[in-house]
Amino acid sequence: MRKWRYERSNSLRNKRSTFRAGQLPLDALLIDRDSPEPIQRQLYAALRDLILRRVLTPGLKLPSTRELSKRIMVSRNTVVRAYEQLDSEGYVETRQGSNTCVADLPLSPSSAIDDDSGKQTGHLSNFGHAFDSLELPQFSVLHTALRPSTPDVASFPFKTWNRLLGGNLLRQNFDLFNYNYPTGYPQLKKAIASYLQAYRGVRCEAHQILITNGAQSGLDLLSRVLLDRGDTVWMEEPGYDNARVLFSAAGAHIKPLHVTSSGWDLDRVPDGDIRLIYSTPSCQAPLGLTMRMEQRLRLLEIAHRKGAWIIEDDFDSEYRLTGASIPAMQGNDSFGRTIYIGTFAKTLFPAIRIGFVVLPRSIEPSVNRAAFYCGHQVSLPLQATLSDFIMSGHFARHLRRTRRLYAQRREVFLELSRDLLGEWMEPFEADVGIQVAFRFKRSFNDAAIARRANELNLNVVPLSRYCHFSDPIRGLVFGYAALDESSMRTHLSTLVEIIRASEGA
Amino acid sequence: MRKWRYERSNSLRNKRSTFRAGQLPLDALLIDRDSPEPIQRQLYAALRDLILRRVLTPGLKLPSTRELSKRIMVSRNTVVRAYEQLDSEGYVETRQGSNTCVADLPLSPSSAIDDDSGKQTGHLSNFGHAFDSLELPQFSVLHTALRPSTPDVASFPFKTWNRLLGGNLLRQNFDLFNYNYPTGYPQLKKAIASYLQAYRGVRCEAHQILITNGAQSGLDLLSRVLLDRGDTVWMEEPGYDNARVLFSAAGAHIKPLHVTSSGWDLDRVPDGDIRLIYSTPSCQAPLGLTMRMEQRLRLLEIAHRKGAWIIEDDFDSEYRLTGASIPAMQGNDSFGRTIYIGTFAKTLFPAIRIGFVVLPRSIEPSVNRAAFYCGHQVSLPLQATLSDFIMSGHFARHLRRTRRLYAQRREVFLELSRDLLGEWMEPFEADVGIQVAFRFKRSFNDAAIARRANELNLNVVPLSRYCHFSDPIRGLVFGYAALDESSMRTHLSTLVEIIRASEGA
Repeated sequence: MRKWRYERSNSLRNKRSTFRAGQLPLDALLIDRDSPEPIQRQLYAALRDLILRRVLTPGLKLPSTRELSKRIMVSRNTVVRAYEQLDSEGYVETRQGSNTCVADLPLSPSSAIDDDSGKQTGHLSNFGHAFDSLELPQFSVLHTALRPSTPDVASFPFKTWNRLLGGNLLRQNFDLFNYNYPTGYPQLKKAIASYLQAYRGVRCEAHQILITNGAQSGLDLLSRVLLDRGDTVWMEEPGYDNARVLFSAAGAHIKPLHVTSSGWDLDRVPDGDIRLIYSTPSCQAPLGLTMRMEQRLRLLEIAHRKGAWIIEDDFDSEYRLTGASIPAMQGNDSFGRTIYIGTFAKTLFPAIRIGFVVLPRSIEPSVNRAAFYCGHQVSLPLQATLSDFIMSGHFARHLRRTRRLYAQRREVFLELSRDLLGEWMEPFEADVGIQVAFRFKRSFNDAAIARRANELNLNVVPLSRYCHFSDPIRGLVFGYAALDESSMRTHLSTLVEIIRASEGA
Repeated sequence: MRKWRYERSNSLRNKRSTFRAGQLPLDALLIDRDSPEPIQRQLYAALRDLILRRVLTPGLKLPSTRELSKRIMVSRNTVVRAYEQLDSEGYVETRQGSNTCVADLPLSPSSAIDDDSGKQTGHLSNFGHAFDSLELPQFSVLHTALRPSTPDVASFPFKTWNRLLGGNLLRQNFDLFNYNYPTGYPQLKKAIASYLQAYRGVRCEAHQILITNGAQSGLDLLSRVLLDRGDTVWMEEPGYDNARVLFSAAGAHIKPLHVTSSGWDLDRVPDGDIRLIYSTPSCQAPLGLTMRMEQRLRLLEIAHRKGAWIIEDDFDSEYRLTGASIPAMQGNDSFGRTIYIGTFAKTLFPAIRIGFVVLPRSIEPSVNRAAFYCGHQVSLPLQATLSDFIMSGHFARHLRRTRRLYAQRREVFLELSRDLLGEWMEPFEADVGIQVAFRFKRSFNDAAIARRANELNLNVVPLSRYCHFSDPIRGLVFGYAALDESSMRTHLSTLVEIIRASEGA
């Protein structure tokens, strides 16, 4: 350190002779004594700017600390510390017992055009460009209206949650605050495992569970760990668009697994290798249909034969109109090919951002390592709170409560929509999920209608958005779970006007 | 739906004649009335298993609901609902007004070998294999000992934090609980922007800030958005290993930017394109050195000339022994090439998992879109709490408190280590960060010593881990911030014994 600095000072000394000494502008050093910013820092900043703007030229000798402190009326110590900081950052150079000189810095970029707005200054990766054509969704904060996958946040027991959270924070188990548990908080993994066994028929042990920042980040992780560019993904059509976006961004070829009201078309299996099958068997996204057992077993058999992974995205199967929820396909898989993805976005609230993945034992280590190095970890106090919430029975209670509530609301919504929309639309025969998909009876431009509806903050999603191959289904997906009857009526009436108008057009 | 089911029943009817009717084993249907599981669900599960195990053969006619309810002494409704669920999942088929028959399912995989443990049943991507050689770090939960980048969690004001968090939860602003603010909670972005301007000399507006799940996930996102396989990354050597892992996993060629106690070697710029430069100028990882202004400006100029991005990882610059922290390099970049990464892991606590990225305007939209589709969102109530914490001055107060504390502890630690380790090791001349790097004065196998030390839970990191090119530096990195003098003494004494032993060996 010393040596190097000494050499630079040398080179500086040779230069110095040639300098026309600049003048130190004291006005620029006026100190604002009312400012919250420490005087030392104000002084340091002012001097730094003068140096960067070349008002103080390289080699210029600064006033001694005593002199400056007198002239700007601050304590000498303040000046000393300001000089020290300038020195340690290389703006000035102080030699033993000698005075302080402005360092010889290359011309500062600050003197270049100071504006990078808009213009692309550099290259992005293929992945970085994969999303160019997409919009960042604009969520209307004020009211969720008919937005799909929107639970009734108001019925979440925040008091209870808050009490549990506070407990975890104040109990001060420091293991909750430091770097720990890269794959997830052990108690939470246990809690989820037993929930999945009891309620979802998933066969797993706690160690197979990886906690993720919501289902989407789990899906992203899997797409990276499982897919190379050019791999084939067999994906439901219509199918979950955000999954599709990720697979495309990973460079996969997507082949359609057609889903109609009569089920999943498993007769047209794509030729050649299939690396990954993406499916939502318990509550098809977006139609809400349930895959019958016969088809589940056939799908597993196909995956086995093709050496393909199955991602079973169980995003919204807890809420079933007719009582108990439908067990996961994972529970029927003895080949260890099914990777189960779950989330608490629908059962608790979306912004909690906690999801999980159930990994086949064979890839548990690989996925866990990848997750760690990609920074897929969820705030530990939050994880601990969720595990308390499940363990102490609050989760089951909340599920029961909301099941009843949503079942009622679903019936009301279906009845209302029959009355109001019946002339143009009919629902798909589904009894699960916190949204319902409707198809148009006659040909309508669902995208156009949705656009118009969303200008009025109805937040509906056109079915065609989930379709990427020939003749998309035309319809709309509605959320109902957060709505009472009167708001349902209001929103649906608005929608009717829009549809009428589009007929007139 | 109807139609399809009707056809299947047909095909079934033809088969039926050929079946030798199985016998319904009533003992398998014994109901445990003490079980918390609803009787309906027990009955459903028992029947399902019999069907999957082919004890009940396809086409077998089940007893009528009235008959079965009598024979197993449960209400008829219970049987009806159990049958309904079996029907809706396709295990049985009920025709109008007629009886209920076991469906014709393909042989269940459950009858295959039911064990996928260990054996690799499928293919992983290149990325999925990128981490094969790495260990998932084992954190010792009980004590952090000398682990680097470990703040003093005990001094975090959990009561205050808890109060703010509770406020956010109970105030019930539903915008905090639904899908919202994909790039981060607006108030938090504002709070971070003004903090960065005032304390870190970063030039940014709130909209340039993207909230991430900790710095590592931000780094991961950037490596994906910026790097294609085969791109060149110029990275500090020694340098932050977890960043290196990500760049390698992205398929990048890594060229060394050598760092010694005399600074960053910017004279040997790699030939050809450089896509990305990774640097930690304010507190070099792991040496703790600070890049002098002259070198910062040169580095920016090189990036400009080469059309490279710079990732400035400002992971730990808030804690500086000598007062104010060193401004970020980003503040000197007028080319819009510097992407600044920050974290609250050191200033609050590691397990909070909140970090952020400051994006040049030119790539703001692309990175934000990628972040959204990759599920990079942090729990909103948590974000709101952090913004309250910053806005109401608690963050600044906590920084001041911990700055004083760590400055004292650092001095104590350096003094102790001089006394105890001085014979073998010397610290790098650094005055920033919550860890210190020491080099061995004579040749020692730092990895072996670290291994031995960590068997005794000292949690030290060998300097050679940060080196990937010729002749690595040999030394150890220690965290000190969470330790009082006596525990420092204990840990260092243990370490001394280990070093002595390795000398003897």
